[in-house]
Amino acid sequence: MSENTTGSTREERFAHGMEVLRSVDGSAGQRVIDSLADISPELGHQIVAWGFGEIYARPALRPRDRQLVTLGMLTALGGCEAQLEVHVGAALNVGLTPGEIVEALLHSSGYCGFPRALNATFVAKKVFAERGLLPLGQQPAQEPPAAPPTPA
Amino acid sequence: MSENTTGSTREERFAHGMEVLRSVDGSAGQRVIDSLADISPELGHQIVAWGFGEIYARPALRPRDRQLVTLGMLTALGGCEAQLEVHVGAALNVGLTPGEIVEALLHSSGYCGFPRALNATFVAKKVFAERGLLPLGQQPAQEPPAAPPTPA
Amino acid sequence: MSENTTGSTREERFAHGMEVLRSVDGSAGQRVIDSLADISPELGHQIVAWGFGEIYARPALRPRDRQLVTLGMLTALGGCEAQLEVHVGAALNVGLTPGEIVEALLHSSGYCGFPRALNATFVAKKVFAERGLLPLGQQPAQEPPAAPPTPA
Amino acid sequence: MSENTTGSTREERFAHGMEVLRSVDGSAGQRVIDSLADISPELGHQIVAWGFGEIYARPALRPRDRQLVTLGMLTALGGCEAQLEVHVGAALNVGLTPGEIVEALLHSSGYCGFPRALNATFVAKKVFAERGLLPLGQQPAQEPPAAPPTPA
Amino acid sequence: MSENTTGSTREERFAHGMEVLRSVDGSAGQRVIDSLADISPELGHQIVAWGFGEIYARPALRPRDRQLVTLGMLTALGGCEAQLEVHVGAALNVGLTPGEIVEALLHSSGYCGFPRALNATFVAKKVFAERGLLPLGQQPAQEPPAAPPTPA
Amino acid sequence: MSENTTGSTREERFAHGMEVLRSVDGSAGQRVIDSLADISPELGHQIVAWGFGEIYARPALRPRDRQLVTLGMLTALGGCEAQLEVHVGAALNVGLTPGEIVEALLHSSGYCGFPRALNATFVAKKVFAERGLLPLGQQPAQEPPAAPPTPA
Repeated sequence: MSENTTGSTREERFAHGMEVLRSVDGSAGQRVIDSLADISPELGHQIVAWGFGEIYARPALRPRDRQLVTLGMLTALGGCEAQLEVHVGAALNVGLTPGEIVEALLHSSGYCGFPRALNATFVAKKVFAERGLLPLGQQPAQEPPAAPPTPA
Repeated sequence: MSENTTGSTREERFAHGMEVLRSVDGSAGQRVIDSLADISPELGHQIVAWGFGEIYARPALRPRDRQLVTLGMLTALGGCEAQLEVHVGAALNVGLTPGEIVEALLHSSGYCGFPRALNATFVAKKVFAERGLLPLGQQPAQEPPAAPPTPA
Repeated sequence: MSENTTGSTREERFAHGMEVLRSVDGSAGQRVIDSLADISPELGHQIVAWGFGEIYARPALRPRDRQLVTLGMLTALGGCEAQLEVHVGAALNVGLTPGEIVEALLHSSGYCGFPRALNATFVAKKVFAERGLLPLGQQPAQEPPAAPPTPA
Repeated sequence: MSENTTGSTREERFAHGMEVLRSVDGSAGQRVIDSLADISPELGHQIVAWGFGEIYARPALRPRDRQLVTLGMLTALGGCEAQLEVHVGAALNVGLTPGEIVEALLHSSGYCGFPRALNATFVAKKVFAERGLLPLGQQPAQEPPAAPPTPA
Repeated sequence: MSENTTGSTREERFAHGMEVLRSVDGSAGQRVIDSLADISPELGHQIVAWGFGEIYARPALRPRDRQLVTLGMLTALGGCEAQLEVHVGAALNVGLTPGEIVEALLHSSGYCGFPRALNATFVAKKVFAERGLLPLGQQPAQEPPAAPPTPA
Repeated sequence: MSENTTGSTREERFAHGMEVLRSVDGSAGQRVIDSLADISPELGHQIVAWGFGEIYARPALRPRDRQLVTLGMLTALGGCEAQLEVHVGAALNVGLTPGEIVEALLHSSGYCGFPRALNATFVAKKVFAERGLLPLGQQPAQEPPAAPPTPA
């Protein structure tokens, strides 16, 4: 788990988190951290060193899967459009397809209701537009499941 | 999407949804629907015919991925322990490993805070106990990612 | 609005609120106030004197309509099952039919998602059972609208 | 409920929902659906075909009552100002008076707190201003209740 | 408890609340009340007469402590950035230091998650910037206040 | 900030957090960590090592103030009764008086509404009862603490 027995300094933990952050968010995450510099650098430090360095870095869930579950959480929480924008971008960076992202947000309508699903979908629209990914149209299944759902 | 041009009746749509529900939730979902029979059979119908038959059945997201994003949403919403119990079971049914589920809930602590993460984890503990899956211990990565996160 | 120019004492405002509370909640509201006596009598006072005496008592919205909007709010908030139980009872007291209550909770599924709709519906089931109102079955429209929706 | 035994196609269900949507929201709902065309036409389809065609169309609750409970839910959820704007307009369209809407939002302060009540009231202010309905002032009761609350 | 046995009129209660509001919020609270004048003057009245006159005025919790707990609530609720802006200003007015406010918001990340903590911190940044308090930098531990907060 | 330049191991960080946790929560926190041992020991580790060792331990906000803001957050979030129970106990441990806690929860009614305030107050009632602190009655304004809370 990104741990060693010889100990790590605060700076080393931050540097490790920055590596993970960059591999996921590119420059979007960095801008958030930068904007905290004059008000709460410690919050920026902890998001990087702990959120990315200690949690995100763990191998027990693939980055793609972490982004999927994160999209679900940010959609459900509501009022997190700024963070959702960063994470829709991150989701594309780690291999989720636009069709999978849009489908996950459609799926959210049954659990969080249409208002939350709409808000999240319009954030995705903004990010996709910036990357030239629109229109998606009635996207076909991106990757047919290798196997049908197999109940235990 | 699970649609045909000759039209489907209300009963056909329900039957289609029941097939999907069974493949995912086994008997847990059925019990929820049954418990609605004397108070709001229409709510039960719509969860099955629409939630499972029209949304869940779409091939654009694999069942495993739908459960991942659902776990994120139910954790973030809070107060949905009963539904989370059904969906932790469903998550196991469609191929998520116990380690992936626990990791997703650990991951939620940075987005929803520790109280929500704790509540969800204790629901998972209950489901895992019933299936004889405990203790998980300090589980190693379940399946190392085929490829490291590749930023665009 | 339940105000006079000669002034009212704290006790008078409480007494006025208790009248309103009793007309709406019967004994259920009283029990909540009683249970606050040894921990936060002021919270009990304010719920009665302000919540019922100053807000609920206002004639600009009928008690039936106040309960409808309250059911919507408590369903959406989540984690308010105890309060929802009191207000489902109050809703029946002020003239909402069981069918209207159940329909309002079904309606909530599109705005709050199925988990919140389910939790609220099971609270209604408990209250209806205590009053001998089950089963409702596939209830027909309780009172056909006098006029179809007429857009402005 | 808006069902027949000969079956309905996906297109028919959408067309039915559009009728209901238009009778309630006028053009505001249409604009939301249009804005989904290039990102998630399926979400637009489901809001119309299911949300309006299957749920809203049910006669068990009058359109006016559906909007009341919807205002309560959107206020309580928070972060749904865009949807609240559409539904405050819809509430006026189906017969709720400005005074009833404002009173419902005042009522929400006891259940959701002042911040949520304020946010919703400022949305109503925007919609009312566009329709030339301001100032409302200290509105008198719109329609005195035919009968006082009658507890069971 | 801001109560007397001779009774108080609606106007007296409002006047009392305005005194408390001014001592806490300066002009920011007044602007909120003013903006309600043409849509819901009653909501403005109740925020002042009840929220500040009856609740905030109670001596059992110091104004500084009320603002601390309020910052926690508004951060956790989400979507209350407008109210948070007023209350970050109020927090400064009643003796909380910028360092304590920022630390409280950092602390919130473990209970509400990073997105809520970030949203609240950026609101604080805006208020602090307007008062010329930036940059805060890596603030050292604040001294215990030399004197207790003295509400006007 | 509880950091040194020679680095700290994962075990050292956990040990430091446990010291802080014990000084605040006594045995209640320990029980939560223990109950995670067979399902998500990593979540237990992070609550202790990060939540308490890195965040709670920071001197920029007194333990008493951290608990105040935490009570506000847990009340606002809803559905966190188990965590609220631990933190009401912790609040007493670090110097908040029963009267201050009850007043903070009364104060919450204006920001989160009565249902959340009620739920939190009934949790406090349970904790106070276990410590023999009931009835509180109409508590007079609490004295400013004779001595500041002294964390271990």
